[in-house]
Amino acid sequence: MNTALAARLQHIAPFHVMEIATHARTLQAQGRDVIHMEIGEPDFPSPPPVIEAAQALLSSGHIYYTSALGIQALREAISGHYKRFYNLDISPDRIIVTAGGSAALLLTCALLVNRDDEILLTDPSYPCNRHFVRVMEGVPRMLSVGASEAYQFTADLIDRAWSAKTKGVLVASPSNPTGTSVREGELKKIVECVAAHQGVMISDETYAGLNYGRKPETALAYSDDVFSINSFSKYFTMTGWRLGWLVAPSRYVRKLETLAQNLYISPAALSQHAAIACFSEAGYAVAEARRKEFEARRNYFVDALTKLGFKIPIMPDAGFFVYADVSAFTRDSERFCTEILDRTGVAFAPGIDFGEHRAREHVRMAYAVSLEKLKDGVSRLASAL
Amino acid sequence: MNTALAARLQHIAPFHVMEIATHARTLQAQGRDVIHMEIGEPDFPSPPPVIEAAQALLSSGHIYYTSALGIQALREAISGHYKRFYNLDISPDRIIVTAGGSAALLLTCALLVNRDDEILLTDPSYPCNRHFVRVMEGVPRMLSVGASEAYQFTADLIDRAWSAKTKGVLVASPSNPTGTSVREGELKKIVECVAAHQGVMISDETYAGLNYGRKPETALAYSDDVFSINSFSKYFTMTGWRLGWLVAPSRYVRKLETLAQNLYISPAALSQHAAIACFSEAGYAVAEARRKEFEARRNYFVDALTKLGFKIPIMPDAGFFVYADVSAFTRDSERFCTEILDRTGVAFAPGIDFGEHRAREHVRMAYAVSLEKLKDGVSRLASAL
Repeated sequence: MNTALAARLQHIAPFHVMEIATHARTLQAQGRDVIHMEIGEPDFPSPPPVIEAAQALLSSGHIYYTSALGIQALREAISGHYKRFYNLDISPDRIIVTAGGSAALLLTCALLVNRDDEILLTDPSYPCNRHFVRVMEGVPRMLSVGASEAYQFTADLIDRAWSAKTKGVLVASPSNPTGTSVREGELKKIVECVAAHQGVMISDETYAGLNYGRKPETALAYSDDVFSINSFSKYFTMTGWRLGWLVAPSRYVRKLETLAQNLYISPAALSQHAAIACFSEAGYAVAEARRKEFEARRNYFVDALTKLGFKIPIMPDAGFFVYADVSAFTRDSERFCTEILDRTGVAFAPGIDFGEHRAREHVRMAYAVSLEKLKDGVSRLASAL
Repeated sequence: MNTALAARLQHIAPFHVMEIATHARTLQAQGRDVIHMEIGEPDFPSPPPVIEAAQALLSSGHIYYTSALGIQALREAISGHYKRFYNLDISPDRIIVTAGGSAALLLTCALLVNRDDEILLTDPSYPCNRHFVRVMEGVPRMLSVGASEAYQFTADLIDRAWSAKTKGVLVASPSNPTGTSVREGELKKIVECVAAHQGVMISDETYAGLNYGRKPETALAYSDDVFSINSFSKYFTMTGWRLGWLVAPSRYVRKLETLAQNLYISPAALSQHAAIACFSEAGYAVAEARRKEFEARRNYFVDALTKLGFKIPIMPDAGFFVYADVSAFTRDSERFCTEILDRTGVAFAPGIDFGEHRAREHVRMAYAVSLEKLKDGVSRLASAL
């Protein structure tokens, strides 16, 4: 068989964090007690109201394909969420339920990205985002951002970077790996800047809701002409259910439906029916309690890491990641991750998964483990550094 | 916003059957009794052993991301299925659990299809298959097939069609929409022919297991150097769970894992744990009973349609579709479908969803409804024709 892989594979790298995770599991198998800060997954079980809703459908056995756009009751519940959280009227007709935020990103890129189209992203950013652009034969162009911009885009940065090949911008706020959001007032300016360039605005809002201090923010507040990517995995802690949604401008919904029919048929039916419970009072109560727990962990963890010599110039205001400058300890964060794991059993991710800009001086640490484990981790780090 | 869609969208058509389905639902909402033969979904509820397995995990709440390749216990169970069904030793390491057959096809095309690479498919064939090639910027080249080849490829046809741009072949046997399989002995010849051209062999085996008369057949019996696409939706009647699998040559698994991590993170956890029960004795007993029920429906339906003047030159030997020649009634099968639906309440799909070759003289009818409903449908057709 012709062994030539598609050229896009040259640009799609494995996650280095998976090497760390595999190494961590090997140590565990040898009897070591490992604290997992390398993977970005909430440690909470699925919310009880979600489980109850799933049980009700499950016992009926009626688990069939749904509309490619998702079941109507869920689309309406998501619409209600925009009213509750943002006081926005988003028609259910513009909401497409997807197999995770992943599918929302893939559909958006399949719809918009032509061969060699350039999409602007920040460096650092979540690696999958640039890979979705690559899979569709586009070119992700990574713009270096640092603490002075809260590791996020500014409208000015986008404006200066815009080229003849630029099709649009993928803004991820709050960000994985930095846990930071675009500066207050900036998201509106970004939406306007992209519109002035007649570009496409893709707003990855996967971590929206899991905010500390600041209210959650959506690009939909500033324009109907944006693509908003969302997930049930973070604020609603439903990772393994693989469910998310996309809000698109009305005129694209028909084409997105066609793409979704062809590429996915439909999202998982049980996940969709269960997710409706997220938007009940009981569902929100679970999510809010968990958000507060994450906030308490963040407050402890950022302070403790700072005392150990990790530099965290911007207080993360969302999600469950700390993007820490480890230049006081190393110029090779990948090696640093491996050494610390070997010596202490604390696992976290090297910066090189997220870009190239000062990546070897940064690590990403997830506080998606209990406060007790975080404290254990910090004391192990203290003895090793 | 720049309204230019990606060029690929020009080639990705909506399913015409969805227009029929929407029209059928409208009639139903008006109080009409509609018999749905337009949609290709088994009418059976999820198998009880699957539901029980899902309930066990669900009550634990431990529904997290899994390995991108799928949970090990399921990969091993699928490996056992190859031993049981085909007496083949397929290592679990070569088995990638996917979010439906859809994801298996998308991953395979993302891995292999370069810009302008030509992939051969039959006309007629399942529309999604050519669209996966298009999404990856490849060119699906449709080769007309008819009753003389059982609506399937032959090695000779592939050999004659091979061009400098041909990267490989996508064989779907048994076929949607025709319910037919490649002739006995031909699949081995096709695998050898594609290998002789140093091409890529993609074998869509979504309907394998749901065979009548002939034993199920896999291209894996003839080579390790093929990509085999599979689904839990048909033989195991788990549509809404969105689960399938891919068997790939060993040397591609690492790259496929990287793609799967980036594009899907993982398949739905609950679906994976539940699907293990398919491979228990109780799970096989359910699947076999349903297969026999489908066979009884086929035997009745094909005979009854033939008596009404539908031409079915090849007895379908798998799946739940009849691809019927309606040239005795019309030269415009789309209009025929709409008229019959309006007059009788029987819904089925026009041939134009599946290609261009004599598409306006064919319709696809699904016998995925009860024998009672099939009989009702036949008597309604008899009074209308």
